[in-house]
Amino acid sequence: MRGVVLHAPGDVRVENREDPRMEQPSDAIIRVAAACVCGSDLWPYRGIEAVNQPTPMGHEYVGVVEEVGAEVTTIKPGQFVVGSFFASDNTCEICQAGYQSRCVHAEPVGAIGTQAQYARIPLADGTLVATPDQPTDDLIPSLLAASDVLGTGWFGAVAAEAGPGKTVVVVGDGAVGLHAVLAAKYLGAERIIAMSRHADRQKLALEYGATDIVTERGDDGVAKIKELTNGLGAHSVVEAVGTQESMMQAIRTTRPGGHIGYVGVAHDVQLPGDELFFAEVHLLGGPAPVRRFLPELVDLIVRRELDPGKVFDLTLPLEQAAEGYQAMDQRRAIKTLLRP
Amino acid sequence: MRGVVLHAPGDVRVENREDPRMEQPSDAIIRVAAACVCGSDLWPYRGIEAVNQPTPMGHEYVGVVEEVGAEVTTIKPGQFVVGSFFASDNTCEICQAGYQSRCVHAEPVGAIGTQAQYARIPLADGTLVATPDQPTDDLIPSLLAASDVLGTGWFGAVAAEAGPGKTVVVVGDGAVGLHAVLAAKYLGAERIIAMSRHADRQKLALEYGATDIVTERGDDGVAKIKELTNGLGAHSVVEAVGTQESMMQAIRTTRPGGHIGYVGVAHDVQLPGDELFFAEVHLLGGPAPVRRFLPELVDLIVRRELDPGKVFDLTLPLEQAAEGYQAMDQRRAIKTLLRP
Repeated sequence: MRGVVLHAPGDVRVENREDPRMEQPSDAIIRVAAACVCGSDLWPYRGIEAVNQPTPMGHEYVGVVEEVGAEVTTIKPGQFVVGSFFASDNTCEICQAGYQSRCVHAEPVGAIGTQAQYARIPLADGTLVATPDQPTDDLIPSLLAASDVLGTGWFGAVAAEAGPGKTVVVVGDGAVGLHAVLAAKYLGAERIIAMSRHADRQKLALEYGATDIVTERGDDGVAKIKELTNGLGAHSVVEAVGTQESMMQAIRTTRPGGHIGYVGVAHDVQLPGDELFFAEVHLLGGPAPVRRFLPELVDLIVRRELDPGKVFDLTLPLEQAAEGYQAMDQRRAIKTLLRP
Repeated sequence: MRGVVLHAPGDVRVENREDPRMEQPSDAIIRVAAACVCGSDLWPYRGIEAVNQPTPMGHEYVGVVEEVGAEVTTIKPGQFVVGSFFASDNTCEICQAGYQSRCVHAEPVGAIGTQAQYARIPLADGTLVATPDQPTDDLIPSLLAASDVLGTGWFGAVAAEAGPGKTVVVVGDGAVGLHAVLAAKYLGAERIIAMSRHADRQKLALEYGATDIVTERGDDGVAKIKELTNGLGAHSVVEAVGTQESMMQAIRTTRPGGHIGYVGVAHDVQLPGDELFFAEVHLLGGPAPVRRFLPELVDLIVRRELDPGKVFDLTLPLEQAAEGYQAMDQRRAIKTLLRP
C-alpha cells in the first residue's frame, strides 16, 4: 500500500509500505477513507522532535472496516468507523472513569501511521465507533475531525469546565484551539475569547462561536484578559499550544478557583511551583480521551449539529502529502485533509 | 503587649510589641486565647526562607473580640472567634466561589503576627467565625486547629476529591497531612494511606482514620502505592509538604484521571510539563480557603464530632515560644500550642 513516511525534518515522502496484517484477535483492518496532518506532526517535521529513522506518519483516521479478529464482537466488516489516536479497551477501570487515552492497554495509533491506504487498529471494539449508516461524502471531513482535533478541543473545554455563565479563554488558534471554541459554544459558555493573530483563524473562531478576539500575547495578553474580566481573570482557560509561554499565559489568565484544560503536547515546559501554588487554579490536561466523547460527537455530526470539518482548508490526494505538511508549516493552511 | 519575634534563623524571642490599634473601620481587635507554631513558620526558622528583619510571627489564632470598627456588623465584642490566616471580605466574586484565600481584598494575617497577646484582624465580618457560646477550655485546641492546619488539610482532601469508594494517599505526616487524613475519613473515603516514617505521627494517623501506613519514599513509595492499588495508583492524593520530591511523589502515585490536592507551600518546585501532561491528573492547590470550611468545622468541633486538637502534643506559655519552635524543628513535637 501507499503511505506517508517522514525521513528527516522537512522530508515527507509517500512510498510503498507493507500492507497491515492482523496481529491480535482484537484487531481490525480498515481501508482509510480520509486521514490528515496534525499540529503535533509538525514537531518532528520542524525538527523540534528528533526523527531517528524513517517514520510512518498519522494518527487521525476514518474508514471502512475490511476485516476483524476473532475476538471482535461489536465492530463489523463494512462499517464506517471513527477512532481515536489511542487504542483503548474501553472496559478497564481507567477507561470506565473516562480516561481512555490512559487505558491500561492503551496503544498509540501514531505508531501505526494512518496517513496510508490501510491501517491496523488495535482493540477494535474499544477504540472504534461506527456511524449509523455510510456517511455521505460531505460528512467525512467532520467525522475525521472528531478523531483528534475536535475530540481534543472538546476535552480541553470540558477539562476547563466551560459552561453556562462562564468566560472561556482559548490560548492557541490551531485546529485544536478552534475546536475548543466550538466545544465551549456547544457547552453553553457565556463569553468565549479566542487569542489569535491570524485573520483566517480569527474568522473561523468567530464562526465557531468566539465572542472576542485578543491578538496580544505574553504579559500584554494577560493584561488584556484581566481588563475584559473585571480584573479577575477567566473562569475557564483552554491551553492548546504546549509551550512554556502558552502554559504561563493560561495560568496567569485564569482567576483563582478557575479551571485550565491543557491539551497542547508539552514541549520543554517547567511549571514554577510557587507561582502555580499562589495562582490557585484547577489544572487538568494530557492526551485527550477522545473515545469518551466520540459517540456523542459522531451523533452530533451525522445530525449536522456540528460542522468541525470547516477546519480543513486544504484537501489533497495522499500522494501530495508533502505539500500538505508544507502548507501547514508555513501557515498557508490551518489543517490538511489527505485522501488515499 | 508581649509577642513572638523572629530575629534570625533559630533566634525566636518573646518581647514587648506595640499594642495593635484599629486601622480600618472593618477591623477587629482580639485578645488571643491561643496561638500556635505552624510547619510553615519553620521555613524561616530553619533559614530556608530569608529573615531580613525582626519579624512578628504567627498566623493561627482564636480569641475574644475586644473591639470592632464602625463598619463591622456581624462580629461583636465579647464573642469567641476563629479566623483564617488570610483575611477576606467573603463577599467578592472569588470569595463567593469559595476561594477566600485569594479574595480580591485578601490580607495575610501572618503580616500581623498572632503569636501575641492581642491581634488586629482585618475585614472582621468576612474573616472571623464566632462560636455559638464561649467554648470550654478543652475545646480551644481543636478550634485553634481549625484556623489553619485542620482547614488546610480539609481543603487538601476536598481538592483531591476524597470521598466514598476512593483510595486516598496523604503525602506528608505533619499536622496538615494528619488533618487531611481526618478530613478524608469524615468525607467517607474507603481507604486512607498515610505516608509516614515517625511512630508518633503514624499513631495519630491511625487514630484519625488511616487504614494503611506506608513508610517508603521516592520511587519505592510510588511502587508501594501502585502495589496497593492494583497497579493503577490512588484516586486522590493530598500533598502536604511542598518539596519537589513530595510533589513528584503525589503526581506519580495518582491514577490517570485522579485528583491531587496540594497544600504544602511550594519551595523550589518545578513541575516537568511532559510528565505532568502524560500523568493526566487533576491538580488543585494553594493557600487553603479555610474560611470556606470554618462554619462547618467550628460546628463539628463544638458538637464534639471532630477532635483535631489531638495534634497539639506540646502546650507552652507564650513566653516559652522559643522552646516550642525548637521542639517542632527537632520533631520532638508535632505541633506546639502557645498560651498568651
